[in-house]
Amino acid sequence: MTVPAPSPVHPAASAPVTLAEVDTPYALLDIATVDRNVARLKERLDRLGVPLRLHAKTAKSVDVLRHVFPDGPGPITASTLAEAEYFADAGYTDIVYAVGIDPHKLPRVAALRDRGVDLTVLLDNTAQAEALAAFARTTGVHVPALVEIDADGHRAGIVPEDPALLAIADALVVEPGTSLLRGVLTHAGESYFCTTYEAQRDAAHAERDAVVTAAERLRAAGHDCPVVSVGSTPTAHAAEDLTGVTEVRAGCYVFFDLVMAGIGVCALEDLALSVVVTVTGHNREKGWILTDGGWMAMSRDRGTAAQEVDQGYGVVLTMTGEVVPDLIMSGASQEHGILTLRPEVGGRDGAGSSDGAGSSAGIGFSDGAATSGGVPGETPEIPVGTRLRILPNHACATAGAHPRYCVVAGEEPGSALAAAAENTPVHAVWERLNHW
Amino acid sequence: MTVPAPSPVHPAASAPVTLAEVDTPYALLDIATVDRNVARLKERLDRLGVPLRLHAKTAKSVDVLRHVFPDGPGPITASTLAEAEYFADAGYTDIVYAVGIDPHKLPRVAALRDRGVDLTVLLDNTAQAEALAAFARTTGVHVPALVEIDADGHRAGIVPEDPALLAIADALVVEPGTSLLRGVLTHAGESYFCTTYEAQRDAAHAERDAVVTAAERLRAAGHDCPVVSVGSTPTAHAAEDLTGVTEVRAGCYVFFDLVMAGIGVCALEDLALSVVVTVTGHNREKGWILTDGGWMAMSRDRGTAAQEVDQGYGVVLTMTGEVVPDLIMSGASQEHGILTLRPEVGGRDGAGSSDGAGSSAGIGFSDGAATSGGVPGETPEIPVGTRLRILPNHACATAGAHPRYCVVAGEEPGSALAAAAENTPVHAVWERLNHW
Repeated sequence: MTVPAPSPVHPAASAPVTLAEVDTPYALLDIATVDRNVARLKERLDRLGVPLRLHAKTAKSVDVLRHVFPDGPGPITASTLAEAEYFADAGYTDIVYAVGIDPHKLPRVAALRDRGVDLTVLLDNTAQAEALAAFARTTGVHVPALVEIDADGHRAGIVPEDPALLAIADALVVEPGTSLLRGVLTHAGESYFCTTYEAQRDAAHAERDAVVTAAERLRAAGHDCPVVSVGSTPTAHAAEDLTGVTEVRAGCYVFFDLVMAGIGVCALEDLALSVVVTVTGHNREKGWILTDGGWMAMSRDRGTAAQEVDQGYGVVLTMTGEVVPDLIMSGASQEHGILTLRPEVGGRDGAGSSDGAGSSAGIGFSDGAATSGGVPGETPEIPVGTRLRILPNHACATAGAHPRYCVVAGEEPGSALAAAAENTPVHAVWERLNHW
Repeated sequence: MTVPAPSPVHPAASAPVTLAEVDTPYALLDIATVDRNVARLKERLDRLGVPLRLHAKTAKSVDVLRHVFPDGPGPITASTLAEAEYFADAGYTDIVYAVGIDPHKLPRVAALRDRGVDLTVLLDNTAQAEALAAFARTTGVHVPALVEIDADGHRAGIVPEDPALLAIADALVVEPGTSLLRGVLTHAGESYFCTTYEAQRDAAHAERDAVVTAAERLRAAGHDCPVVSVGSTPTAHAAEDLTGVTEVRAGCYVFFDLVMAGIGVCALEDLALSVVVTVTGHNREKGWILTDGGWMAMSRDRGTAAQEVDQGYGVVLTMTGEVVPDLIMSGASQEHGILTLRPEVGGRDGAGSSDGAGSSAGIGFSDGAATSGGVPGETPEIPVGTRLRILPNHACATAGAHPRYCVVAGEEPGSALAAAAENTPVHAVWERLNHW
């Protein structure tokens, strides 16, 4: 893989030189781990012969995407029009906006197409299709569309056998011989709850079958259907046969997270993103370590609550990347974190939630075995001022809490951090896009 | 109350003129409701004879704060140094940074004090106090400190009787006769879980007793202790006697939210903040309405999950402010929302979570009675393209998901929305601060 040109350090006069100079909480990104994650999926998809359409919603950073597309902009998926606009500014011209289109947004879509961006939208009902066709007739701007197929009851879309499929395709005909239909797309969202490789592989093949079946129905009815798009991080890493599929979408895998580790798609050492926090105090009676990183920095995501091992708001590492045995971030208020031992190994009081935000209700720690091999015991003594890293449940949500990534680099994943901890040089500060 | 000068509409060339011109999802703020909430607490605190130190962490907007301090900047609380810097730029000079101080941040604190901002920090251990005193001796910058008192086991702080209280005060002595100690502060965070006025009042008095006891211990030991600070939105609205207290902190009350409504501190019509979303599709078999507002727009906060009535990710209103009977936002992925009837009145399938973020585990809908008086029945037919408003669980978290507020104004709370729905004029677009 071609090594991309290093991005410049953030141009602010006070650009940090080492991690010690960055105020906590901040998002830390180990780019060697990103590179390894990117190479792993690339190798898989090369073997399957299906190209990647990266989902940009996790990283939302031109600098991160340079590590996915070292030879220049490639095909991407966006979750908002702001993302599409941001990446268009950076030269990306092949974009699928993969959230069901709100007809109010068509002028903004048209403005992107006017700039030369081949922006495709997503829909799953005739009201949207009719709005698109009417817009084409009124403005002359033809916005191509994918029909969303429901592979597993997860969210949006229609099942492949739904009579509405052909009605939507018909509604996309602007005039005889001119259709806005470009293909079909599905997302196997339920694969996030598949806990074995076999189940993830079966989900991948069900995802493929759903969308290929829909494409075949459309073609049998005389419609062109060039795009057959699937994707989720678990299915992308488990599919063994993608016959009939023209592209795979995935995004979370660039950073990975505890939810993905919890279902075995990656290991803890594959997590490229963490949040650096500082110890500010202790409640020794309760076994609590307090930090300056709360839910504003981690997000409120509690994705591992549904898994065998509930990781609270995240797993605690030292700055050099070692797991602190059985210490997790079990409580969060806006700008405070509470670290405790896992309840089953001596945590005396699940810290739960603060600020009345009440995900205390959601923090029912599992009885699953601790993953980190610690023995029951006392909360480790970690002095005020110590910095720690918290691995997040859900990379998309935690990254979305931050305006930028503080990037470290080394030859091997984790090597920059293992080498020098707080004095690690800051390789770069990369801004990311947020909001709409 | 003096009416503040209207803030200018956002200077962007494309500043929206009516709500119909703003792309969803966006944060909508009804400023007449803010004014009523502000007046209500002001009246209470005037009667108690204790001044307000507004917590700015909810609004994080100079424009909103103008409605709290119409005569110019007043005393505020900040949850981050970025907030302190932002409000200092706007002329606020009396700021308490109310998250336990990380000693690494003292240079940034000193820079604010050098600018003439009387910034006070918070601490609860001798390590922090020694770092402050050492900083004063080394740099000559005397950073005043409040000792955090634990009133209810909620989070940080020491109990009033803790021997460490006097040790911390001693450690704050820079040289004989010169101390950095300015007082004591507590936050009755557990009051968010008090469901009756009487319990909230008792929490307020326990909060007062904790901090007054600590102040008396410090004074008996020969320390000055001019500041005795309490605060939380529930206790601020329930305290009947604050003898010995010198200031009350509250912030959430400016907007209020479903968590506060759920414990009776406010009514639904007092909620000033909502998120506007657009219907993009339906799954009629499951009784789902899909929207373009997911957890990025609402936050992942599930604060009402711990309450008698679980409101999912939020209560659904029409644009004109009527509650849609028993319709709640029960599911969320990054940029999708799922609206369903409450499970107990016909919702066939709790939508739960998507994106593997798994707060599905946290969405165990309560068996409590529905609040909105709906009768069991079918999901209402709401066409694609319809805009709706979602009232949030937790104003701090939901506001923090947005870069700005789209503000509507009317003579009475809600009147601007009740009058004209989507064609309501945009009074202003107010930027807010995020991040650190």
